[in-house]
Amino acid sequence: MPGPLITLTTDFGFGSTYVAQLKGVLLSRIPTARIIDVSHDLAAHDIATAELHLRSTAFAFPIGTTHLIVVDPGVGTARRPIAVASCGMTFVGPDNGLLGVALAQTGARCVQIDQPGLFRQPVSPTFHGRDIFAPVAAELAAGLTLDDVGTEISDPVVSTLPAPQVEADRVVGESLGADRFGNLMTNLSVAVIAAQLGQFATRVAGDSVARCETYADTAPGDLMVLEGSDGYLEVAVREGSAAERLGRERGIPVECIR
Amino acid sequence: MPGPLITLTTDFGFGSTYVAQLKGVLLSRIPTARIIDVSHDLAAHDIATAELHLRSTAFAFPIGTTHLIVVDPGVGTARRPIAVASCGMTFVGPDNGLLGVALAQTGARCVQIDQPGLFRQPVSPTFHGRDIFAPVAAELAAGLTLDDVGTEISDPVVSTLPAPQVEADRVVGESLGADRFGNLMTNLSVAVIAAQLGQFATRVAGDSVARCETYADTAPGDLMVLEGSDGYLEVAVREGSAAERLGRERGIPVECIR
Amino acid sequence: MPGPLITLTTDFGFGSTYVAQLKGVLLSRIPTARIIDVSHDLAAHDIATAELHLRSTAFAFPIGTTHLIVVDPGVGTARRPIAVASCGMTFVGPDNGLLGVALAQTGARCVQIDQPGLFRQPVSPTFHGRDIFAPVAAELAAGLTLDDVGTEISDPVVSTLPAPQVEADRVVGESLGADRFGNLMTNLSVAVIAAQLGQFATRVAGDSVARCETYADTAPGDLMVLEGSDGYLEVAVREGSAAERLGRERGIPVECIR
Repeated sequence: MPGPLITLTTDFGFGSTYVAQLKGVLLSRIPTARIIDVSHDLAAHDIATAELHLRSTAFAFPIGTTHLIVVDPGVGTARRPIAVASCGMTFVGPDNGLLGVALAQTGARCVQIDQPGLFRQPVSPTFHGRDIFAPVAAELAAGLTLDDVGTEISDPVVSTLPAPQVEADRVVGESLGADRFGNLMTNLSVAVIAAQLGQFATRVAGDSVARCETYADTAPGDLMVLEGSDGYLEVAVREGSAAERLGRERGIPVECIR
Repeated sequence: MPGPLITLTTDFGFGSTYVAQLKGVLLSRIPTARIIDVSHDLAAHDIATAELHLRSTAFAFPIGTTHLIVVDPGVGTARRPIAVASCGMTFVGPDNGLLGVALAQTGARCVQIDQPGLFRQPVSPTFHGRDIFAPVAAELAAGLTLDDVGTEISDPVVSTLPAPQVEADRVVGESLGADRFGNLMTNLSVAVIAAQLGQFATRVAGDSVARCETYADTAPGDLMVLEGSDGYLEVAVREGSAAERLGRERGIPVECIR
Repeated sequence: MPGPLITLTTDFGFGSTYVAQLKGVLLSRIPTARIIDVSHDLAAHDIATAELHLRSTAFAFPIGTTHLIVVDPGVGTARRPIAVASCGMTFVGPDNGLLGVALAQTGARCVQIDQPGLFRQPVSPTFHGRDIFAPVAAELAAGLTLDDVGTEISDPVVSTLPAPQVEADRVVGESLGADRFGNLMTNLSVAVIAAQLGQFATRVAGDSVARCETYADTAPGDLMVLEGSDGYLEVAVREGSAAERLGRERGIPVECIR
């Protein structure tokens, strides 16, 4: 029987002392924990990128996984610590929109964490990741329920990602960021758009762009739109960078037209 | 009895969503898998560097390890997915030369992976790492044999690394890349050269350079040639960077002369 | 019963072949080892930064953890390999000051590692991490005692970090480095200073700077001094970088005045 899985997603930096301290606290609480680094080099304090990251990664893990996510510009303020149960998994982090994708799933429940007896004491006012979120994530991974660690709330901060604009014959979304290869991720779910529009053509920054199945379907250097591996539309350039071609990573309009 | 060891070597970027998805798929298939990050920041689409990396790392792991290696510029084209059994280990990746060092070992066997029933469905045309390579690596780590996942082939793509030029009194190789300290790795195996030449002197970019046992054997700033920890000649500068000194990392001629 | 915990802290670079080889050697010696990456991107050959890193991370891990730390500019010279028992944990690395924080704890013991029968053979003169430190760390994690691997010494190299200057009414320390957010760490332990001075005010680079509880206690852009999560004074700027503001990371005077 393998120990519980806990994934880590932070903006602390790979190799930072902060990440190591999270790991130390988790392992001190649950010696059998199996810790998986998801990412630690998210842009500092950038909640939207963290959400986007979570959208693509969380649901690839097995049912029962605990996800600890800390991008926390409001540490030390009144922002609430929360835990969310969603799709058979548990999410722990600050209530700043970060967990929007978990909260948006059918049947999600959210509690405000309010059991100081579970925290690492004394709680540092600058490092709730180590002193509140990690201990609570460990206890949840070890078997506590949401109700053991907090009190249900109905008003957590929802996603900070821009929603696409849906019209009868058109859905207008935008790029949300780029991966290492310069491919641009968007807020356009292919399943949702196909349900709304049926067949559709695409425009990027106002220009018609061909839809492809795979990177090899165009000539090197051509801009294309394809279904990314996360089920959302993606803008790419074969053997090149769409982010470079279009001059930026976020906010580029992507239109789907019946 | 610890779970099976699976190493990951990719060009997806540390902290990318792609690496996390690989991990999620592996753990979903084998809850007891122990995943070791080898590297994720190989130069994008650079097969030769990935091969060089594999040459230095794969055989340090225990017999029975499964190595999942994905540097896959041809994803979505007709390039074949393969699995290789070599030296008591298993290697899974695209058939583009990446696994050359595994294929070059005595007794290596190679199959073309062709059992879609093992894949994650639907297979994304842009992410075979997640949908073909990871699931098959997981099944191999869990106990399937090469013949369970594919059909033997005799023509996999061999190493893309340049071979040294061997003459009666001389072997001419070249630098293949640099490590973080600016030390240059080469394609010159000390064992092979010593067998061919016996005692030998070395030249780098046409100039005689002293052979040393260790970095401390020269004055700070001096260029030297020594046996790297992987058994290949290495070009170094004490307390400095050979890559900077010589102005580049690859293709610098290194001669061994009887 | 989970396998022994071994943490890794090096300057080899995340994703370098050197880190992978350490992991391979550890797992070959102890198949059940659980390896935790602490950091691999410490500044190359920078012993002081490595010490500072260890100060913040080592003691967050559970009793019984083995810490393998390799920042080793003297590899191949006469510098000794050592192992230290401190606070219920074991530390393995070169005798160059790196393990100063472990050595400084009450009851710490240190041996010079001198049992070549435990090493990986042949020992590469350029990679003691793989051939001496990792095998010995593995054997210690698996149950050998300090006396099984070496001979006690009383003169290991102590910390290379600057000590604060303690006067009757004043303690003068300095910044030791910055984290990813530009917060500056110092050599001023709040507990030690409070014991010496009671209440105290602070100056940074000669100017009075307010002491705060948390980042949110000042206006954005204001310089502040607060107790870092490691119990040492820290210099920060709310929503900004103290390192940028002050123009450097190390050696900035920080005064505590009764």
